[in-house]
Amino acid sequence: MSDTVTVHGFSPSGNCHKVRLLLEQLGRPYRWVETRSDQGATRTPAFLALNPNAKVPVLVREDGAVLTESNAMLCWLAEGSAFLPADAWARAQALSWMFFEQYSHEPYVAVARFICGWTPLDSPRRADLPRLRERAHAALAVMERHLASHAWFTGEAYGIADIALFAYTAVADEGGVSLARYPAINDWLARVRGTPRFIGLPDNDADVRARLAASA
Amino acid sequence: MSDTVTVHGFSPSGNCHKVRLLLEQLGRPYRWVETRSDQGATRTPAFLALNPNAKVPVLVREDGAVLTESNAMLCWLAEGSAFLPADAWARAQALSWMFFEQYSHEPYVAVARFICGWTPLDSPRRADLPRLRERAHAALAVMERHLASHAWFTGEAYGIADIALFAYTAVADEGGVSLARYPAINDWLARVRGTPRFIGLPDNDADVRARLAASA
Repeated sequence: MSDTVTVHGFSPSGNCHKVRLLLEQLGRPYRWVETRSDQGATRTPAFLALNPNAKVPVLVREDGAVLTESNAMLCWLAEGSAFLPADAWARAQALSWMFFEQYSHEPYVAVARFICGWTPLDSPRRADLPRLRERAHAALAVMERHLASHAWFTGEAYGIADIALFAYTAVADEGGVSLARYPAINDWLARVRGTPRFIGLPDNDADVRARLAASA
Repeated sequence: MSDTVTVHGFSPSGNCHKVRLLLEQLGRPYRWVETRSDQGATRTPAFLALNPNAKVPVLVREDGAVLTESNAMLCWLAEGSAFLPADAWARAQALSWMFFEQYSHEPYVAVARFICGWTPLDSPRRADLPRLRERAHAALAVMERHLASHAWFTGEAYGIADIALFAYTAVADEGGVSLARYPAINDWLARVRGTPRFIGLPDNDADVRARLAASA
């Protein structure tokens, strides 16, 4: 597990940022190949040979072996570290939150943000925003309830379920999903930002900022 | 890990059936609490106390500890068994397919089936079917490509990624998603059905069968 992995990722993507954040916090060297999924870079024959599902991130080991799905990467990278408990029940709880993230959170919180910042202002997809925001708030309410009595999502300590849920929650407001009514989530976001070697998502470029401002 | 778990589940649900199939194949005793999610049974205060995300299945240990998310249950139940490899990379590959299942497969294959069989024939949700079926076929094409050169999804042997993907793939046609063009998937479905102690989904009741027939 000590080789230098290569991550093909799009920096503004929360799914990609998760993997970078864990690699930074593990202090593990890696190569990053910027992949503009917003400009069709995941639809080229070379990329589809890596991931037929046409999504970033993709992790490649030095021996060429490939791993897809951001949360599977978090599990593999965190194996044996403090970011993933050894106890089977605690691991299952971390996984439960990570499946929650991919099924009940990301398709609403992340997709609302993507539509606001990365699609044209006249995109027909913008008609989906009210429904997406309603579902986003339902997911945030589940998180708020947990965080009212727990400091973290991965059992007793900060770990990969926190990393998975942090990525898009931290920028939910970019999709028009305000965090104002979730005090426990805001406290947790601050705790995550205070962990050693934390790095946030990069600033959005000017075009994205303009679309986000026009979507508010 | 030897206590008798209780599973709150809706029998026709593939997500619930996954858990039952693994429990049967492990030969592990369990209690099943039938929970009619199609009739609001996951929205009661008692159920929301178990799972604030209002979804089945929910697994409860004898000591009252609760686990949500079907694929997290598969991981926990399979720990230490032949259904989940011990090797970290092989486990990550199984998880990758399970995240694929929840993000790229279930929201299309399972939701198309649910709309056809469990919503009224005049439901406005039926307008989503063409888009859902298109995405369902994209997911099946990714599976077909893998199965063209691999017998299973969990590395070298049948395991929990196969169980996770089998559940809704086996009944994809009920959502109007034909498997006719996927020979490798059909061969794999037959291999899964041939594993020891396999059990299939229960037969649909008459109302569901009538709606499915009218949706074809």
